[in-house]
Amino acid sequence: MAQDFIFEKLRHDDATRARAGRITTSHGSFDTPAFMPVGTQGSVKALTQEMLERAGASIILGNTYHLYLRPGHVTINQLGGLHRFISWERPILTDSGGFQVFSLTSLRKMTEEGVEFQSHIDGASHFISPEKSMEIQAALGSDIVMAFDECTPFPATRDEALASLELTQRWARRSKQRLSELHNEPASAGPRITIVNPTQALFGINQGSTFLDLRERSLEGLIEIGFDGYAIGGLSVGEEKGAMFEVVSHIAPRMPEDRPRYLMGVGTPEDIVEAVALGVDMFDCVMPTRNARNGQLFTSRGKLNIKNSRYKDDSQPLDDACPCEVCRRYSRAYIRHLYMSGEILGSVLTSLHNISFYLDTMRVIRQSIELGTFSKFRDSFLSGLARGQD
Amino acid sequence: MAQDFIFEKLRHDDATRARAGRITTSHGSFDTPAFMPVGTQGSVKALTQEMLERAGASIILGNTYHLYLRPGHVTINQLGGLHRFISWERPILTDSGGFQVFSLTSLRKMTEEGVEFQSHIDGASHFISPEKSMEIQAALGSDIVMAFDECTPFPATRDEALASLELTQRWARRSKQRLSELHNEPASAGPRITIVNPTQALFGINQGSTFLDLRERSLEGLIEIGFDGYAIGGLSVGEEKGAMFEVVSHIAPRMPEDRPRYLMGVGTPEDIVEAVALGVDMFDCVMPTRNARNGQLFTSRGKLNIKNSRYKDDSQPLDDACPCEVCRRYSRAYIRHLYMSGEILGSVLTSLHNISFYLDTMRVIRQSIELGTFSKFRDSFLSGLARGQD
Repeated sequence: MAQDFIFEKLRHDDATRARAGRITTSHGSFDTPAFMPVGTQGSVKALTQEMLERAGASIILGNTYHLYLRPGHVTINQLGGLHRFISWERPILTDSGGFQVFSLTSLRKMTEEGVEFQSHIDGASHFISPEKSMEIQAALGSDIVMAFDECTPFPATRDEALASLELTQRWARRSKQRLSELHNEPASAGPRITIVNPTQALFGINQGSTFLDLRERSLEGLIEIGFDGYAIGGLSVGEEKGAMFEVVSHIAPRMPEDRPRYLMGVGTPEDIVEAVALGVDMFDCVMPTRNARNGQLFTSRGKLNIKNSRYKDDSQPLDDACPCEVCRRYSRAYIRHLYMSGEILGSVLTSLHNISFYLDTMRVIRQSIELGTFSKFRDSFLSGLARGQD
Repeated sequence: MAQDFIFEKLRHDDATRARAGRITTSHGSFDTPAFMPVGTQGSVKALTQEMLERAGASIILGNTYHLYLRPGHVTINQLGGLHRFISWERPILTDSGGFQVFSLTSLRKMTEEGVEFQSHIDGASHFISPEKSMEIQAALGSDIVMAFDECTPFPATRDEALASLELTQRWARRSKQRLSELHNEPASAGPRITIVNPTQALFGINQGSTFLDLRERSLEGLIEIGFDGYAIGGLSVGEEKGAMFEVVSHIAPRMPEDRPRYLMGVGTPEDIVEAVALGVDMFDCVMPTRNARNGQLFTSRGKLNIKNSRYKDDSQPLDDACPCEVCRRYSRAYIRHLYMSGEILGSVLTSLHNISFYLDTMRVIRQSIELGTFSKFRDSFLSGLARGQD
């Protein structure tokens, strides 16, 4: 287990399974429940690191697959690791690359050993195994490393899901083994890599598709290996929302109480509030930034589509209940104009608002858990969203 | 003459014609020589207004043609004018739309009355005359309005240039007449327009192509009408640099001492320093933002092309002599990675650096004029640029 990685549970909600906590890494602490903005290629799209800091982002996510292909983990390592490369001194979590390898690239061959695939950039062949994923993430020097898993495709038969989770289980063990080796024997990383952050924590990833017994089986296997935190993977990949919450409500309470729980790739503000109520501590999702670039804003009254002509003359902020930099200064009419004119600033302001809205929602979630008013907050938040204004 | 518009000449350089001054408008003052970042569609491309303020932009430019077509001057006027629409409380200059009408659109018909053209957005027919240009700029409420001119195409015969400057001369008179009417009889703007800034100043535009006697003739005509400031137009449109400076060095000293002199659409940092030495006070150019989006950076050692593979592993800032937000935090390697990966943040950071470099150059120019060291600054600045690092 990583020694500098500490999870403190600070408060348990009485009426739900929601919990407030704090995670400490060698790059500082962050409070949970936490939302991690996604910086796929080393940039949370359209935002400066200063904007993220001011919006209150306390941890961001980087993508192993993308950074491995460009500019390359060796380059980043030689520049001092990912934190220094992107100039972000707060915690960073890196995914394992598994999700992207399976979803973005032309798969060439998957074996017990790992995955051979073609780069989406230049078509070149690459091979990633659990060991290789750990080597890349160790070179990047993130604070939280994800085990290399197979994100089980949806839909899957029970047999497919079982085979997949068993592979993920074996890969999880190999991931832990190799990361520990890299931290304890840095020379094993090879001559071109310096171990910049030997205090990295490692999270295992729960799979099992929508089969609850397989989810349990996967979790037991992970606990047996032992990780610093546990993630729920393979959701938000096409299944119905009901099926997703069935899995989360079944498996989250079974995850170790004293370790962070991370629901990968989820989701809307509503999804996050619901998953917090089920005991989840960490989230990531491209939705706030991706939707922003498509003109879709998250507000306390639900989604707002800035393309809508009704906003042409609207001098109000995107969300009059939002304290963010964008809502304090700019009007819907101006942001709509920027969007319609294809101005880069349109993407900047909409992304900044959406990320601020997510981070602010997390802040209010944490406060309400600490004050013992989470259920009340949840009801009023969800009914606010349902008012709608699209 | 606009009563709230004041130009104070504070200091004259001994060795050159350079001058330091201050212009006051109803939206505050700015020091000259000044560079105005170009906000074509109501946004200095890729930058937030906060970034511009922090970088020290004290006046920006908006484009009448673009804002007239989208979102429309009536919409902007109903939202309180351009300052409020884009949330920028410092001075704004609007061009007259003439340059864009002549260079960007399918010209349909030019008459003594004005120009009929087709929108580059939807092909719709529009008509702009000097009066219409003033009505649009009055609706926008900018602090400095430009007279509607014909930007004489290059190359032009002497007869063409003469005919063109005489048209510009007649249009300048009509511009002044109509703007004065709009300020004095606001109702003449029609029922949908409110005069939001009756203290607008009006600048006349000198034409005459590269014919020095025609430039003089044009200037005499403008002075006879009388403007708050005088601009040199029709340069940086394809002529050789030598020809441009021949015009500027001939005409700038003949422009009224007690009025600001504005060289439109110029130019590189070198061009600006040279034109300051010839007595010019104001500049605008899309170069810092446009080149930024193409990966070309301005630095104290000349241009830097961030696409160059030599910067792949370079942990230095873009310009180690630059105090801007970008150079304080981000490396060439990271900015190159953002550029190569097509990240929006690449355009944001390169634009912010280039605009900061321009504004910082203007600051140093002003300081050196005030300290009586402008010639020395100019020599060391130009020899620095010449070192090159591309």
